Amino acid sequence: MNDPLELLKDLISRASVTPDDAGCMELLAERLEKTGFRAEYLDFEDTRNIWLKRGEDKPLFVFLGHTDVVPTGPIERWQSPPFEPTIQDGKLYGRGAADMKSGIACFVTAVERFIEKHPDHRGSIAIMLTSDEEGPATNGVVKVVETLERRNEKIDWCLVGEPSSDKKLGDVIRVGRRGSLCAKLTVHGIQGHVAYPEIAENPIHRFAPALKELTEEIWDRGNAFFPPTSLQVSNINAGTGAENIIPGSIEVQFNLRFSTESNEDSIKRRTKAILDKYDLKYDLEWRLSGKPFLTDKGDLIDAVHAAIDSVTGFEPVDDTGGGTSDGRFVAPTGAQVVELGPINATIHKINENVDLKDLDTLTDIYHNILVELMT
Amino acid sequence: MNDPLELLKDLISRASVTPDDAGCMELLAERLEKTGFRAEYLDFEDTRNIWLKRGEDKPLFVFLGHTDVVPTGPIERWQSPPFEPTIQDGKLYGRGAADMKSGIACFVTAVERFIEKHPDHRGSIAIMLTSDEEGPATNGVVKVVETLERRNEKIDWCLVGEPSSDKKLGDVIRVGRRGSLCAKLTVHGIQGHVAYPEIAENPIHRFAPALKELTEEIWDRGNAFFPPTSLQVSNINAGTGAENIIPGSIEVQFNLRFSTESNEDSIKRRTKAILDKYDLKYDLEWRLSGKPFLTDKGDLIDAVHAAIDSVTGFEPVDDTGGGTSDGRFVAPTGAQVVELGPINATIHKINENVDLKDLDTLTDIYHNILVELMT
Repeated sequence: MNDPLELLKDLISRASVTPDDAGCMELLAERLEKTGFRAEYLDFEDTRNIWLKRGEDKPLFVFLGHTDVVPTGPIERWQSPPFEPTIQDGKLYGRGAADMKSGIACFVTAVERFIEKHPDHRGSIAIMLTSDEEGPATNGVVKVVETLERRNEKIDWCLVGEPSSDKKLGDVIRVGRRGSLCAKLTVHGIQGHVAYPEIAENPIHRFAPALKELTEEIWDRGNAFFPPTSLQVSNINAGTGAENIIPGSIEVQFNLRFSTESNEDSIKRRTKAILDKYDLKYDLEWRLSGKPFLTDKGDLIDAVHAAIDSVTGFEPVDDTGGGTSDGRFVAPTGAQVVELGPINATIHKINENVDLKDLDTLTDIYHNILVELMT
Repeated sequence: MNDPLELLKDLISRASVTPDDAGCMELLAERLEKTGFRAEYLDFEDTRNIWLKRGEDKPLFVFLGHTDVVPTGPIERWQSPPFEPTIQDGKLYGRGAADMKSGIACFVTAVERFIEKHPDHRGSIAIMLTSDEEGPATNGVVKVVETLERRNEKIDWCLVGEPSSDKKLGDVIRVGRRGSLCAKLTVHGIQGHVAYPEIAENPIHRFAPALKELTEEIWDRGNAFFPPTSLQVSNINAGTGAENIIPGSIEVQFNLRFSTESNEDSIKRRTKAILDKYDLKYDLEWRLSGKPFLTDKGDLIDAVHAAIDSVTGFEPVDDTGGGTSDGRFVAPTGAQVVELGPINATIHKINENVDLKDLDTLTDIYHNILVELMT
């Protein structure tokens, strides 16, 4: 029962492509109810979420994860079927092996071991799982956190089991994330024939100097915890396909990953200033996908460092790089949030895998974090 | 028989959308054979062409035109059915009324009148028609001219009946056209995730300064006959649609309308210099759609000026603006080429029309040009 490998194999064999949980949560609830957890399903539209909690006292420690996985890609390129967990050369292959069914298997096993030895631990322990982290993330953790906030259930420490490790298990932990701001820009011109540019207005030409300036702008220089804010244009489209028509408009999408040196308002204001400088006629829609957050000190980060050191003999690097995770929804509540999980080299790829010995190491680390904080 | 209106109505009622001639050429051949023309069909693939000639002596005067028309667009927006010639308020409505079935009806009628009075005119008179001027123009006049060149049939004067007039009939004639050069550019980068720009290479960002420079470049300042060379970007596309992916490449199409102050080689060289300045990895394909040509002096232009003055009392403005026409295929043979036809305000539009009194004026002008040159 206390073997993360068997649980992980059971989870991988469930083809839980977003937003399908494929029974993972029931499996986990059944196990954890035996150690005193109360299971509460918080489903929103097509998304299954579960809130498993043991105890009512403060402080509240939460393991956060997602049971959904990304699609397999071309199945014939996998060396073994992606939903049949397969061991080869000391590694377990399967979709979700690293992102993040191993994280779940390890923290569930660690919790079971901890409670076995410390049935009367201090505070409460909870496990929060969603099935849409890899999708739009609109009916998952964001909604669960709203529910908890409404009933004043306050999270003190949140350990996200996402694959944070780089070269070896525990070498990198994420102590924050940059913010993410998406923009959809349409610049308007006047359609016409390329032979008569004087009675048309080419929106590509009008936008060109603003595009150059947007891509060259230095938004900030980052700080000790965050790399500099970065703008990337992801899509740009104009034209009818015909080679002799000046198009009437150009559509552009761009995304900013921003440090705590910038914020939503400052970025919007500076973008507008650049566009207005060139006297463009445009529509601009913004969508904030996540504010930056940072847990640069406190009990949780200390406990994580100590636990990694106790198991591996080294201390991790604190990092804020990489993409968004569900931690962004928990941090604004005031919780301390740290991400720690397996090596991320194969996530979202063909032949995703996890090292078998890392499963035991990770379970030991999670266990020791609980010992540090909950005894 | 000598009424351009009746012939024009007959032509408009034939729905000759490119490359369909819909029997227009047979109709005209039948008429002109009665005045001593020999008809020769020169069909290439889906395109019908006709070469109608009277006489074998030099000099050779040619009226050039096309029987095909552009599509009607939404038929319910026409005030009368586009292929039912309809007279209202002194105007004839129908697709092709201005571009360019009126030109054809007027020059055929003018030729008939001229031959009636001058059956023993000097030189030869020919009428060259195609059915693909509005299409790709690959199997029309370009091929007919090749055929004539092969048999050493040299054109001295070519009057193109395209709608050149601006505000009133005969106010503008085209004495040349800019060249047209099309480019297809692909700039390569390295695809990646917007959260990790340091391990990707955004081709939109790499291309942005080159785009700005291309659109701002002053290629030349034109001359007495040509406006300055103009570059217009017609299409620009990059992106997967996803807002978090840095695309792997950007595709750009642009077109240059160039004066005789630039040429194909100079434009290619300068474009390459701009792209290379920014150290871009790119593929660039060029297609020359037409070289610039100019008929700024000679018997033809003098005759056209004199004929317009004799009929209207004013002289036309010589112009080289606007889009390409089939004149670009005749000019390189050394022929003098002038375009003169009805007002172009409604061409390619809903409710295309021609003023009835302009039909008579235009026929008189065409007639007087023949008198000037062929008697």
